[in-house]
Amino acid sequence: MEKILTLIEKDLKRLELAIDTLNETKVKVITNIIDHIIKSGGKRIRPILLILTSKLCGYKGKRHIKYAAVIEFIHTATLLHDDVIDNAQLRRGSSTANILWGNQASVLVGDFLYSKSFELMSKEGNMDIIKTVSNATTILSEGEILELIKTSDTNLTEEEYFEIINKKTAILFSAACEIGGILGDISKAKIRRLSDYGKYLGIAFQLVDDLLDYVGEKDTFGKQVGTDLKEGKVTLPLIYTLKHASEKDSSLIKENLYKREITSKDFKTVKNIVEKYGGFQYTHNVTKIYIEKARKCLEGFGPSNYKDALLSLTDMMLTRKV
Amino acid sequence: MEKILTLIEKDLKRLELAIDTLNETKVKVITNIIDHIIKSGGKRIRPILLILTSKLCGYKGKRHIKYAAVIEFIHTATLLHDDVIDNAQLRRGSSTANILWGNQASVLVGDFLYSKSFELMSKEGNMDIIKTVSNATTILSEGEILELIKTSDTNLTEEEYFEIINKKTAILFSAACEIGGILGDISKAKIRRLSDYGKYLGIAFQLVDDLLDYVGEKDTFGKQVGTDLKEGKVTLPLIYTLKHASEKDSSLIKENLYKREITSKDFKTVKNIVEKYGGFQYTHNVTKIYIEKARKCLEGFGPSNYKDALLSLTDMMLTRKV
Repeated sequence: MEKILTLIEKDLKRLELAIDTLNETKVKVITNIIDHIIKSGGKRIRPILLILTSKLCGYKGKRHIKYAAVIEFIHTATLLHDDVIDNAQLRRGSSTANILWGNQASVLVGDFLYSKSFELMSKEGNMDIIKTVSNATTILSEGEILELIKTSDTNLTEEEYFEIINKKTAILFSAACEIGGILGDISKAKIRRLSDYGKYLGIAFQLVDDLLDYVGEKDTFGKQVGTDLKEGKVTLPLIYTLKHASEKDSSLIKENLYKREITSKDFKTVKNIVEKYGGFQYTHNVTKIYIEKARKCLEGFGPSNYKDALLSLTDMMLTRKV
Repeated sequence: MEKILTLIEKDLKRLELAIDTLNETKVKVITNIIDHIIKSGGKRIRPILLILTSKLCGYKGKRHIKYAAVIEFIHTATLLHDDVIDNAQLRRGSSTANILWGNQASVLVGDFLYSKSFELMSKEGNMDIIKTVSNATTILSEGEILELIKTSDTNLTEEEYFEIINKKTAILFSAACEIGGILGDISKAKIRRLSDYGKYLGIAFQLVDDLLDYVGEKDTFGKQVGTDLKEGKVTLPLIYTLKHASEKDSSLIKENLYKREITSKDFKTVKNIVEKYGGFQYTHNVTKIYIEKARKCLEGFGPSNYKDALLSLTDMMLTRKV
């Protein structure tokens, strides 16, 4: 990661400046809430993708910085609303905005960020990018609603799970890479490949996220471990295990998934069962497949530092702890 | 109103069809929630303004229908989020979506509608309209946040109150009229006048809404009367009364405004005090001033049925019961 951060160091500094400058409103509490969440050590993975892909395509202008900020704003809006939906207490090691300012403010500031993002894009004037982003955010909210409906649904299939993570996570990764391609003015076919790269990387990212929710360390991961189980979110490690486990083990998982509150003992019980049936290993293996798919999408692009960076991002997915 | 509805009868039918067609998603619950709220007898005032202003400017195309649907979608998104924020039970005489489907679904379906609206606009390809709408929704969410911050603030000034209603209500009325002007391809100065007409009409609309929250009949008004007092919303009738009332009467108002639950006796106590100091009459008088301002904005437009309709809408504000 250090290498990537050095490669686009100047752009990342400009990005932070842009985030500060564009987060302007007369209403102080809006700025405070946005600052709190956007400066709490996010990985900036979506803006980094946008910057790297635009550079990969030979883009020489400055607009990628503003779009990178917009993508991070949209991501931040979804986090604000997610934390309300999940009643989350902790994000990136700090109290969530809903805990500090209340659910109402979190909903409204999320709305503000969505609108502000479209306002900023409309000022830039690129209709293709507005199409890409509005399509992505529509699908994203569909994904979140699907996830909500499927809460505690132990019949969730792998196919449905992939539809959910594709919509709620991968689509914004994909949009970020697509914007890089649009700015670079490359062919539609090549833009499609970048967009697919983002999609597969996004799926891998979410798979690892769902894995870390069981096997991560709270202090490193920044979120509370075990929240998916607590919230009744059925993710790939569970789906695989429920398919292969004995009736007794399946029942134990379901029982804990339906509970409103789980103890760390409950969590360990479920974790051990998943481990026993190889649910974590399976998720890891599937992640590798998507990493490979992502890498393949970059084959048509000539060698460059930016391509290397995009390739190394795929490897990082497998080793990431945060 | 009958006359206006007859004048644009065909367009209003097309609007309902467009609302149905555009409210399409594979996720059934999204369609259900949107249907529930959008077909519960809304007045379609914003789409009507868009249609009438576009016709006033001689627009002959069909795009105004789609934009009218978009404006109603955006309005619906704000209602979904508002009802979560206010924990509202009743809207237009029916249970609110948050009561029927929960806060989480309401937040996410609101997000879906915002995104879908921008997606639909990006497909139409008019950047000026996207600018107008994204600017309006940004200001709108600022207004909602301001209102939230100022809850139970008995020091709220008239100026601050007008900033809030301008942002949370008038801006979308204004945007609807501006889109009519943009579609009609009239001069910037004339577009500005339409936008101002919408703004003043919107302010009058909200003033009457705040008045009806005290003096309306529940069965006619569709909402519960007295909700502003219950939610600690300080509106013009109260602002005026607090400024003129004796210390004893002021204290009585404040006491009830701070309460979490109010009885109908509490509500009547406050209502009688406001009546005594002329707070309702004052609000009515201020509404008249804004109605007059709105009418003046139309002076530069030649005579037509559409102009008459827009003028008659201003009068209707004063007599509306719903």
